Amino acid sequence: MHPLTAQITFMLEIDKLKAVYRKTVVQADNNRHENSAEHSWHIALLAQVMADYASEPVDILRVTKMLLIHDIVEIDAGDLFAFAEEHDHQAQEQKELDAANRIFGLLPEQSGQDMLSLWLEFEQAQSADAQFAKAMDRVLPVLQNMSNHGGSWKTNKVKKSQVLKRNTYLQTIAPKLWDYVIEQVDIAVNNAWLVDD
Amino acid sequence: MHPLTAQITFMLEIDKLKAVYRKTVVQADNNRHENSAEHSWHIALLAQVMADYASEPVDILRVTKMLLIHDIVEIDAGDLFAFAEEHDHQAQEQKELDAANRIFGLLPEQSGQDMLSLWLEFEQAQSADAQFAKAMDRVLPVLQNMSNHGGSWKTNKVKKSQVLKRNTYLQTIAPKLWDYVIEQVDIAVNNAWLVDD
Ligand SMILES: [Ca+2]
Repeated sequence: MHPLTAQITFMLEIDKLKAVYRKTVVQADNNRHENSAEHSWHIALLAQVMADYASEPVDILRVTKMLLIHDIVEIDAGDLFAFAEEHDHQAQEQKELDAANRIFGLLPEQSGQDMLSLWLEFEQAQSADAQFAKAMDRVLPVLQNMSNHGGSWKTNKVKKSQVLKRNTYLQTIAPKLWDYVIEQVDIAVNNAWLVDD
Repeated sequence: MHPLTAQITFMLEIDKLKAVYRKTVVQADNNRHENSAEHSWHIALLAQVMADYASEPVDILRVTKMLLIHDIVEIDAGDLFAFAEEHDHQAQEQKELDAANRIFGLLPEQSGQDMLSLWLEFEQAQSADAQFAKAMDRVLPVLQNMSNHGGSWKTNKVKKSQVLKRNTYLQTIAPKLWDYVIEQVDIAVNNAWLVDD
């Protein structure tokens, strides 16, 4: 196959991410659910704005690419709510790996492998780039829910400890943002937007 | 104001881009209109996939940032159809400049100015980075409409010459993609998806 044909096939396949809806809602658009494509745009931009908070050097281009591709697997695997049960998260992992192989496999071989590696690096969250990217993905819903009277936290009876656990990457990779999250979570508990536990 | 407060205000303000709808439709989501946030995600990723087609060296991080921010002005100015009348395009320009000043102005001073410059560079389309970014923004709807039986071209009776004119940046900055567009436009005319002129 001509490389361009493969690249276009991939670009059209990922259009489907615009039809994968998350629990988070878009306040500016009548609280409709947010889709994973626009969410990926938002966190990629968050990484540009928050880059200076990284406590060790990060390569913002790699971080940005990770954020642009990290949710593509949801085209096959669907979005699992961040605060779903542990066994659901485990089942989701295999579905996402299969999806990554299928979808990045649409690209010409070398670039497909590069994207797959980048996606795996994000998932494994061992490198500074991946940890900073994960932190961006996880902190944005905090901002969104806080500005929307609790948003998807309130609707889904999410607990304070769950939000803190989900944001622990911030603690080492962006300590100033971690301090901010702790403050916000306390405000949320006081407003009954999060369950105190 | 604390820089973090300003950065968060900006990140929440741009959430509104998810409520700005374009003429292009999302085939995978019952042909609903596409919004400018998810479109920005899609073209930012297109730039990663198509980077090797650039005929002169481009800085993909700068290109990506341009693509992530280029439509933010539509929060105030709205999306103008690519093939609107010339006088509408001129009126739109001033609205977008005002919007850029207001929205990027929400950021801490230096980073707001950096984003404003990057946005102006994109608009002026003089640098290789800006031309490649513009080319990505303009070629994606070609792929989307071709895979969707003419999509927004057919609905809006768009002419062949309009699509070619809009994609001329490709001719110098990514000649292989330009050749592809010419082929596709001919197919579109044969299918009556574009008006021959
Ligand atoms: Ca995510």
